[in-house]
Amino acid sequence: MSDWEQIEGSLATPRGFRAAAVAAGLKKAPGALDLALIVSDVPETVAAGLFTTNRAAAAPVLLSRQNLEKSHGHAQALVVNAGNANACTGRAGLQAAQKTVEAVADLLDVPPQQVLIASTGVIGVPLKVDGILEQLPRLKGSLSVENAVAVPGAIMTTDTIPKSCVLRGKIGAGTVCLAGIAKGAGMIHPRMATMLSFITTDVAIKPRVLQTMLRNAVEGSFNRLSVDGDTSTNDTVVALANGASGVAIRPGGESRAAFVAGLNELCLALAKMIARDGEGAKKLITIEVAGARTPGDAERVARSIANSPLVKTAIAGSDPNWGRIICAAGYSGAKFDPSEVDILVNDFYLCRKGLDAIFNEAAAKRELDRKELTLHINLHAGPASTRFWTCDLTREYIDINASYRT
Amino acid sequence: MSDWEQIEGSLATPRGFRAAAVAAGLKKAPGALDLALIVSDVPETVAAGLFTTNRAAAAPVLLSRQNLEKSHGHAQALVVNAGNANACTGRAGLQAAQKTVEAVADLLDVPPQQVLIASTGVIGVPLKVDGILEQLPRLKGSLSVENAVAVPGAIMTTDTIPKSCVLRGKIGAGTVCLAGIAKGAGMIHPRMATMLSFITTDVAIKPRVLQTMLRNAVEGSFNRLSVDGDTSTNDTVVALANGASGVAIRPGGESRAAFVAGLNELCLALAKMIARDGEGAKKLITIEVAGARTPGDAERVARSIANSPLVKTAIAGSDPNWGRIICAAGYSGAKFDPSEVDILVNDFYLCRKGLDAIFNEAAAKRELDRKELTLHINLHAGPASTRFWTCDLTREYIDINASYRT
Repeated sequence: MSDWEQIEGSLATPRGFRAAAVAAGLKKAPGALDLALIVSDVPETVAAGLFTTNRAAAAPVLLSRQNLEKSHGHAQALVVNAGNANACTGRAGLQAAQKTVEAVADLLDVPPQQVLIASTGVIGVPLKVDGILEQLPRLKGSLSVENAVAVPGAIMTTDTIPKSCVLRGKIGAGTVCLAGIAKGAGMIHPRMATMLSFITTDVAIKPRVLQTMLRNAVEGSFNRLSVDGDTSTNDTVVALANGASGVAIRPGGESRAAFVAGLNELCLALAKMIARDGEGAKKLITIEVAGARTPGDAERVARSIANSPLVKTAIAGSDPNWGRIICAAGYSGAKFDPSEVDILVNDFYLCRKGLDAIFNEAAAKRELDRKELTLHINLHAGPASTRFWTCDLTREYIDINASYRT
Repeated sequence: MSDWEQIEGSLATPRGFRAAAVAAGLKKAPGALDLALIVSDVPETVAAGLFTTNRAAAAPVLLSRQNLEKSHGHAQALVVNAGNANACTGRAGLQAAQKTVEAVADLLDVPPQQVLIASTGVIGVPLKVDGILEQLPRLKGSLSVENAVAVPGAIMTTDTIPKSCVLRGKIGAGTVCLAGIAKGAGMIHPRMATMLSFITTDVAIKPRVLQTMLRNAVEGSFNRLSVDGDTSTNDTVVALANGASGVAIRPGGESRAAFVAGLNELCLALAKMIARDGEGAKKLITIEVAGARTPGDAERVARSIANSPLVKTAIAGSDPNWGRIICAAGYSGAKFDPSEVDILVNDFYLCRKGLDAIFNEAAAKRELDRKELTLHINLHAGPASTRFWTCDLTREYIDINASYRT
């Protein structure tokens, strides 16, 4: 069966994982947790990863990509810091990442290529690696199932709430767990992995199978998310599967379908948390495009609307300005007839056959006042549909980003 | 010679043009000028036009495009209103535009296909065409050289200043004039014509030649401009050339080069006025990309930086966050090595060979505090370069756009 139940827990709810977080002086606030370690106690734990497509990929991205290749998809540890992205930091940045990985490998007695690394924070500022190296022994010492709850908070930057989701399901006769955490906020754009997200699970699975499943899950979740259209230098999604449940996922079988359903659900839940907590965001906006000529056209329209500052500011102000929605669809490159388009917010028609359908302005505003709302765009041009998530664009976005670095 | 001198004047400074503006009740402010007419007294005045690529093109765009085709590039009048875009208004919107054009044609005794029309303002609201038709006789009555100065103000929406530029130059033995006005503010994106701009000139020129020159001038000016990445339903650039100076522009000759230089200068001046007056903008940002592998790569990098909300908010806050600039270059799709990149604001290095080069934070901030600043990005990857214009992204952008419609 493929029913997954959401439960309380952490990255260490799946069996055989431990984690912890400490303060390494990377965040401005004194004592703030900013360095975390996630380990699997099972040697040769399977790992899959997706990384930013940004050409200016950060040092930790370069190193993790390389390690995953060297280890043929295995990793027993993931070290992550917030407060400094270690991006645009040149040779010194690569060395800092390498030193951190080697120190973790030494402490845990695992091969360095089985240690992955991720960073998030300000770009272009040298990473204070000494603070990290100094804290690693203490971090290792506090690894436990209980301390794993601190990790989602430690990877936050401008996020306002920690993001975490744990699912439990039955696959065949066994019970397995899938857990994930994420950080998002700014620089979120639907191309490839879009932020940091780490996933643990106790199923047994082949590296290539996990990699494919992760890619598909990300495609349907994190890649359909837009906060501001910027794709970061550090985007990373890593999944670790250690087999500690004794349940094996085999290609083609029922177990595969069940696990895919859980992984997709987990990624989607985390993606929606990110959109809801976009920088300055007050509203989670789901964009449902239907009636597109092709899947490509559906995606073009959804992406265009999700990225339009004019649409997103209108929604911030609860202004039922559907003209901006049709306008964004119009410049997306998709083919459709504007005079056929229907646009609804939730169940309320804003536009019918390309014409204004708002008979009650106050009621339209009320729909837009909701904290979670869905824009339905039916192009009536074909059979294809898709779904995207974004947030509104508010003054707070500007306030957060006008002085992020200083 | 090809030297053009900027002079005081209006769209009626080129000989044989008259214009005027009246209040037709389309703008909210009572008595605000919102309807304008520009006419050439020379029959068979040559006209060229470029229109939005948005699939949801507004009624006036559809009609003007059609009229230009029917008339084989001739027009004696251009009627334009602000306050209502007459976009997403269906059959009624097309009829309203058609009625307006026919009424103008009747009043001026010219064929309807020689009347062009443009609109700007809110989308999806039926146009009050009766107010327009009622005012047209008065508008025709006030057509004069003097009253042309009111036109740039009448086409404004969220613009804070009227935009106008007049150039005078010698071509051969004759003196000619080129005049242009524009309105911009929101929904500005560098694809095709990007807002409203109307140009008059008294040279004699063939329709196809003018069309090609206008296309090239727009490519190097309005299409290299980004306020918020939205491409409007109503973008229109129209040029009218009536030959009243007696100077003919002939293909291949010196006159051609001289005229092209003037037309390019005029479009560029208007484009920069638009960027400077972007919604909520406090700063005009010139983006100079050099050292790109190909012209396509140069444009990709410039466009990506010009459209990045993270870069634009950082500049609003005078935050020398060059990491966001290299990041935007990194996801542009252009090929380059991040560790070769230099970034300067004006003459001040922010980043050298991909690494932080700010030795004096206060000095960097001072450069970013300027009202007009240039970001130089040298990719050191090849010979290609380009230039773009944009503005900073401020809280005022949000304030303007959160309640534009209501």
